[in-house]
Amino acid sequence: MSASHGSANASFHAIEWHHQSLRLLDQRVLPHEHKVHEYTTASAVADAIRDMVVRGAPAIGIAAAYGYALDALAGRDLQAAYKVLAESRPTAVNLFWALERMAGIGSDDPHALVAEARRIHEEDIAANLAMGQFGASVIGENAVIYTHCNTGALATGGHGTALGVIRSAYADNKVTQVYAGETRPWLQGARLTAWELMQDNIPVSLVCDGAAAQLFKREKVDWVIVGADRITANGDVANKIGTYSLAVLAKHHGINVMVVAPTTTFDPSLASGDDIPIEQRPQEEVTSLFGHPVAPAGCKAINPSFDVTPAGLIDVIATEKGLIMQPDAESVALLLAR
Amino acid sequence: MSASHGSANASFHAIEWHHQSLRLLDQRVLPHEHKVHEYTTASAVADAIRDMVVRGAPAIGIAAAYGYALDALAGRDLQAAYKVLAESRPTAVNLFWALERMAGIGSDDPHALVAEARRIHEEDIAANLAMGQFGASVIGENAVIYTHCNTGALATGGHGTALGVIRSAYADNKVTQVYAGETRPWLQGARLTAWELMQDNIPVSLVCDGAAAQLFKREKVDWVIVGADRITANGDVANKIGTYSLAVLAKHHGINVMVVAPTTTFDPSLASGDDIPIEQRPQEEVTSLFGHPVAPAGCKAINPSFDVTPAGLIDVIATEKGLIMQPDAESVALLLAR
Repeated sequence: MSASHGSANASFHAIEWHHQSLRLLDQRVLPHEHKVHEYTTASAVADAIRDMVVRGAPAIGIAAAYGYALDALAGRDLQAAYKVLAESRPTAVNLFWALERMAGIGSDDPHALVAEARRIHEEDIAANLAMGQFGASVIGENAVIYTHCNTGALATGGHGTALGVIRSAYADNKVTQVYAGETRPWLQGARLTAWELMQDNIPVSLVCDGAAAQLFKREKVDWVIVGADRITANGDVANKIGTYSLAVLAKHHGINVMVVAPTTTFDPSLASGDDIPIEQRPQEEVTSLFGHPVAPAGCKAINPSFDVTPAGLIDVIATEKGLIMQPDAESVALLLAR
Repeated sequence: MSASHGSANASFHAIEWHHQSLRLLDQRVLPHEHKVHEYTTASAVADAIRDMVVRGAPAIGIAAAYGYALDALAGRDLQAAYKVLAESRPTAVNLFWALERMAGIGSDDPHALVAEARRIHEEDIAANLAMGQFGASVIGENAVIYTHCNTGALATGGHGTALGVIRSAYADNKVTQVYAGETRPWLQGARLTAWELMQDNIPVSLVCDGAAAQLFKREKVDWVIVGADRITANGDVANKIGTYSLAVLAKHHGINVMVVAPTTTFDPSLASGDDIPIEQRPQEEVTSLFGHPVAPAGCKAINPSFDVTPAGLIDVIATEKGLIMQPDAESVALLLAR
């Protein structure tokens, strides 16, 4: 039986448990091909995670949980399943969290483990839907929304974080137009966000990252809504490179900024965004596109994978526990203590 | 004899008058190939302009002037030469200006016409060098400079406008690092500016447009230096899309903004930037790259070719007549009256 929660409000399934197997929508070939692969072993799921058939931290965790359950169903060694899945993407925190939860069942019973994987999946969707409703509640009528990167049903169990708020607000007839920043260098906005929104008939236009300011000045834009990779104790937000730029530009033009993330994204051990190291990714991601060099051979490039937006530029953080208005150390601590 | 002024401080020739023929560096295949084509007729030069072998408004005007002189040298019909060149790129103002100047000689004498084309070329370089010196004079020691699009020896008779200031300041040992914004959607920063600076051993790193804000926050950046397509009576500047974003971000981080343009770029007939219509270019320039689609089929995109930066965000405009500090209607009028 198909897990109907797999899609939530989205019209497609990125991750679907189907007849005791796992189906993954191949995100490497989107938007030009719609390929679904079927998996029956933890090892094959680990390959799919490593090869980026599935991406997005929550989605990776859910896929890994199902992969672990697949080996239980086949009576295979679960310690080996744990190991091969844990080694697939060494830096995705949700991956380890999901595997720990599966191993924590303390049983080889396939029914118990499939049920736990489905719970992890359903809880993620439920959290997305809760964030979506909380976030949508503060959006007014006829809203024009600008978003960045991909934070949708492809990156999560379904529905999405920032895109989940946009989906929920659209379902409430509050959204007239979405602008998707293309998000260089990986172009997740062009490749994934535009595709997701077009699948659900939500009106979307793509925007080069450098064109956002002019759009903010000349058109009515009400909200910039983005996801988060990490939120520190004072409400500073690390997210995909380009987010900080949008927050400064939004503030300059009187546009509201919303960050959407589950409470698991908060890291109260860090006092502020100054404590977050900025990861530099390979220069080739900037100097070439689709294997085609765009810059001269040997050209240097800076390629930080994310940036930090100070809490002072953020109007609201939407979580599954509720909203944090004008985030600061006190309001963040209050929400996390709920 | 080679026109030694053709390169000014740049180590390459985009446009070179050589043994009664015109040589153009093919900008379509840069930075991966260094091809120089030789032209002996106005018609062939018109094709080169249309096919974008040569680009940049000043460079187009200079190439057209030489094209006109080529037909004079061969004793061909100069009215036909004028017509074929004028039809090559119908929107480039400098093209008509240069052809008018050539026709204004009122003679078929090839020596007079070659001399006039060379004067047009030399005057453009001289204006670039003057702007370069004026602009460099306000840059302090150990400067880190961020630039956008391509405003260099490739786009002009030689030296460049914004890149000319960077070249002059570098020659004065004032510049430690240049950052080149890649400038989506056409990637002129990656393809042309990085190449020009590397040719002259000026240290350059490429930056995705969305990463500029984080760079401004975490690194020492002293100046954002850009060119201009049109400057209105009050000092508002229309320039390549992304410029306005950089100006807002620079202001937020206490970084100086310099615009570099010859006085021919000023349009005192327009009171302010609000009067400048924003040209929307084809959506496909955003949704595909090198003929490779990056967005879903049928995806909409906005693609304004330039944006308007209000004079209030600009610290200085450098022209061949001198500097305008804190530009406004009064200071612009004073400079143009010199």
